[in-house]
Amino acid sequence: MRITILGAGGFLGRKLAARLARDGSLGGRPVTALTLFDLNVPPAPDAAFPIHRIAGDVGDAATLSRAIPAGTDVVFHLAAVVSAAAEADFDLGMRVNLHGTLALLDACRKLEHAPRVVFTSSVASFGGGQQAMVPDDGRQVPANSYGAQKAMGELLLQDASRKGFLDAVSIRLPTVIVRPGRPNKAASSFVSGIVREPLLGLATTCPVGPDFAVWVCSPRRAVDWFLHAAAMDTTPLGIDRGLNPPGLSVTVGELLAALEQVGGAEARALVRFEPDPAIEAIVAGWPAAFAATRARALGFAQQEDAGAVLHAFLADDLEATRAERAMT
Amino acid sequence: MRITILGAGGFLGRKLAARLARDGSLGGRPVTALTLFDLNVPPAPDAAFPIHRIAGDVGDAATLSRAIPAGTDVVFHLAAVVSAAAEADFDLGMRVNLHGTLALLDACRKLEHAPRVVFTSSVASFGGGQQAMVPDDGRQVPANSYGAQKAMGELLLQDASRKGFLDAVSIRLPTVIVRPGRPNKAASSFVSGIVREPLLGLATTCPVGPDFAVWVCSPRRAVDWFLHAAAMDTTPLGIDRGLNPPGLSVTVGELLAALEQVGGAEARALVRFEPDPAIEAIVAGWPAAFAATRARALGFAQQEDAGAVLHAFLADDLEATRAERAMT
Repeated sequence: MRITILGAGGFLGRKLAARLARDGSLGGRPVTALTLFDLNVPPAPDAAFPIHRIAGDVGDAATLSRAIPAGTDVVFHLAAVVSAAAEADFDLGMRVNLHGTLALLDACRKLEHAPRVVFTSSVASFGGGQQAMVPDDGRQVPANSYGAQKAMGELLLQDASRKGFLDAVSIRLPTVIVRPGRPNKAASSFVSGIVREPLLGLATTCPVGPDFAVWVCSPRRAVDWFLHAAAMDTTPLGIDRGLNPPGLSVTVGELLAALEQVGGAEARALVRFEPDPAIEAIVAGWPAAFAATRARALGFAQQEDAGAVLHAFLADDLEATRAERAMT
Repeated sequence: MRITILGAGGFLGRKLAARLARDGSLGGRPVTALTLFDLNVPPAPDAAFPIHRIAGDVGDAATLSRAIPAGTDVVFHLAAVVSAAAEADFDLGMRVNLHGTLALLDACRKLEHAPRVVFTSSVASFGGGQQAMVPDDGRQVPANSYGAQKAMGELLLQDASRKGFLDAVSIRLPTVIVRPGRPNKAASSFVSGIVREPLLGLATTCPVGPDFAVWVCSPRRAVDWFLHAAAMDTTPLGIDRGLNPPGLSVTVGELLAALEQVGGAEARALVRFEPDPAIEAIVAGWPAAFAATRARALGFAQQEDAGAVLHAFLADDLEATRAERAMT
């Protein structure tokens, strides 16, 4: 099985590559080649199969054709300019998020057999806010350019699937926590920060109140979903290739209770509430819960509880994050 | 007021240009210049204001900038490769329907003031079938490339409106009847054909049964909607710029009854039912009714009954259609 990961240098791309290297197979078939593509040459895990690494612009069709060589069976399309960056630089977001997906389609049409494409869409393509329980057929009315570009990508890949150019599954990822690294300017940064920083022994603030709810998943579960989407039978999807996976609707208070269970009262004491109306104004528009009935019925695994999310961070990312932050 | 019509050579584009020429104003402001753009040089109506005519490829950004000159207040974006053609030639549909709209955005961003953009989207962006009553927040799951490209265009223009690059209203047009001209290979051709042909004294067939329902509007009403969308206050729309206008859900039987009222029993007798499972399979997927509550509340005029649709054809298009068909 020949596999390509676009955006292989990112947080989730690296985890996906490592998982494929560890498993050595996908959907019961051995992995025979893995191509890792990103703007800069992405890191490669140790693997029993050959790994090719390519750096380039995802919006450039010629470059992308090299990243999706003849015989490619599966493309994981994780390459994206994320929400805050796409909002700050409209043209950059369009180039990567829309034209990158158009270039992906061009590259896939050159293949002899239509490859499976696993596309990471986003909850940012929805509105609705705290009271929302988005149904499976909920309409996407994005309030940000990133979400609009993702929703356009879904429509493109859905139609391309109907035409037989490729065979897409679009997964609308929840907010993925716990992100390693440092706090950043993304409005959602605090959702990871309020647990990551205390587990590193660092003080942090929370810009919204304890009742604020958010739709989340762990990076482990996100990778499980990618692999399931890559191997599943797409016949039951029909023309509708977009899925809301079964994430977890969790409040800030519940996350902090899990933090106290995992890290003790001293970890919990490192979080101080400091309301930030500017951040609250942005995040208040995100839907806090999804029905996700269809994805569950299609075999996508349920996100486990907040405690499991924190334990996954401790097991997978705490040491690396600590080491990285000590160095820089 | 400086106005541009993209797709000005088409059926609706010509009617819109003629209406602007007749009115001389839009939303109470005098029209000072009109630019008509199409692939071939479009015809121009007699008007009291200057009319510029430009031929070119709507997907070419440089050409389109000439069609949307400095000071443009309103752009009517009617240029499209329609459903059957976009299905037969995917690349052509993408070029005109998606890249044309991207080029429109580029051209609008060069203007000093964000222009109003009236975009013709389509009911083809929805599924649902005969039993559907599509709500205002109904999700677009297109079953054809034309509908997918229109839905992508809506997302693009909606986000561009939010960013202040332009100020869009997207109108999801029903099947427009009565189309002048000849029967063609479009699956929807019969909806116009079963009334137009008999009114010309010609026999025709109907591929679906008398209970088959379709969501229609007259070209007169479509032009009314365009003008209302061009002049309305868009503040109440918020970020959601897509509207299902108040068309008419009518059955084939009701259309034929109106035909008999308008054209007599001899006209009605010219229509023979001849089931065509291939056509029925396509059109059975189209939603036959929409709630259209939001558009009504925003002042979009209700489509009148089937009789009014036929009378409009008799008044506006019968003679020209007869003359054109006699010539060719």
